[in-house]
Amino acid sequence: MAFEEIIKNAYEESENNCRFGDKVEEITAIQNYIKNSKKIYIPNKNGIKVEVLNEVLNEYGLPTARILQINTNAADASRIPALAKAYMALDQSDADLIIARGRLGVPGSGSFLIFMDNKGRILTAGTSPSHVVHNKTLEEAVYNEANEALIKIGFKKVKE
Amino acid sequence: MAFEEIIKNAYEESENNCRFGDKVEEITAIQNYIKNSKKIYIPNKNGIKVEVLNEVLNEYGLPTARILQINTNAADASRIPALAKAYMALDQSDADLIIARGRLGVPGSGSFLIFMDNKGRILTAGTSPSHVVHNKTLEEAVYNEANEALIKIGFKKVKE
Ligand SMILES: Cc1c(O)nc(CC(=O)O)c(C)c1O
Ligand SMILES: Cc1c(O)nc(CC(=O)O)c(C)c1O
Repeated sequence: MAFEEIIKNAYEESENNCRFGDKVEEITAIQNYIKNSKKIYIPNKNGIKVEVLNEVLNEYGLPTARILQINTNAADASRIPALAKAYMALDQSDADLIIARGRLGVPGSGSFLIFMDNKGRILTAGTSPSHVVHNKTLEEAVYNEANEALIKIGFKKVKE
Repeated sequence: MAFEEIIKNAYEESENNCRFGDKVEEITAIQNYIKNSKKIYIPNKNGIKVEVLNEVLNEYGLPTARILQINTNAADASRIPALAKAYMALDQSDADLIIARGRLGVPGSGSFLIFMDNKGRILTAGTSPSHVVHNKTLEEAVYNEANEALIKIGFKKVKE
């Protein structure tokens, strides 16, 4: 089923007070969208995040992502910087799928890694506390966030 | 320091390419805002989430929240239903702090629990996979999300 139909049906349920949470077929649709993405872009200035994210995508048997070199500093002035970065990437490329990482909210709120489709919808996400709270390396934090995002929608590793 | 000043400084750093992530004093400011909140509201139709959330707030020595009885079904038609619920609560009450829970993104994307201040800023958040993925009760999922959101900004339990 396409997202359009799924979203229409889900909202009809909400309106009629008979929406009782997500369904297996909705999760399968998200998985299929990600599996079938040809152009996966990661907005970024340098390549560190891209390398780690490709390591994770590969562990789940998913297609490889490419860096989209755009300056996303302006996103940090917005309410949800990670989301603003994803929209910037969407609006400046022909991506099927964007994976964007940035701050979740106010300074101090930690990080948010978003998977977004080609219409700007959020498919899944992972979060971390601020690095000053968790003391992990950037690589580790990104690795964990991406795993969280994929496991959350039912993906399983196909290799280590 | 007030959020206004923190946000101004953080963005100046981003603009000048010298923002290297969150700072301890920013996290302390978020903690203080939550500790000093007098009117904490949870938009909801029934009381289940409110009971669990107050259990968690109490474990961290934080003030008690109250239910804000508004119909949030319309939020499910938006891009980030949890965020839309938080804004509905903010716009229909005199809250200092809103704790709203709803879907993260498209149907299937799981849940998102947001702490929002009285200007609509995101302070912290927790997430869960869809209940069909994790198989937890609603109570357990909400309990874990709230713990995640508070631990993330450096809060520690004061009782079990
Ligand atoms: C309306 C709605 C929905 O469709 N899905 C979810 C996530 C889940 O099923 O775990 C939530 C929290 C919700 O409020
Ligand atoms: C600009 C920016 C910022 O201020 N804070 C964070 C979270 C963190 O420090 O862990 C991130 C990911 C970020 O991109």
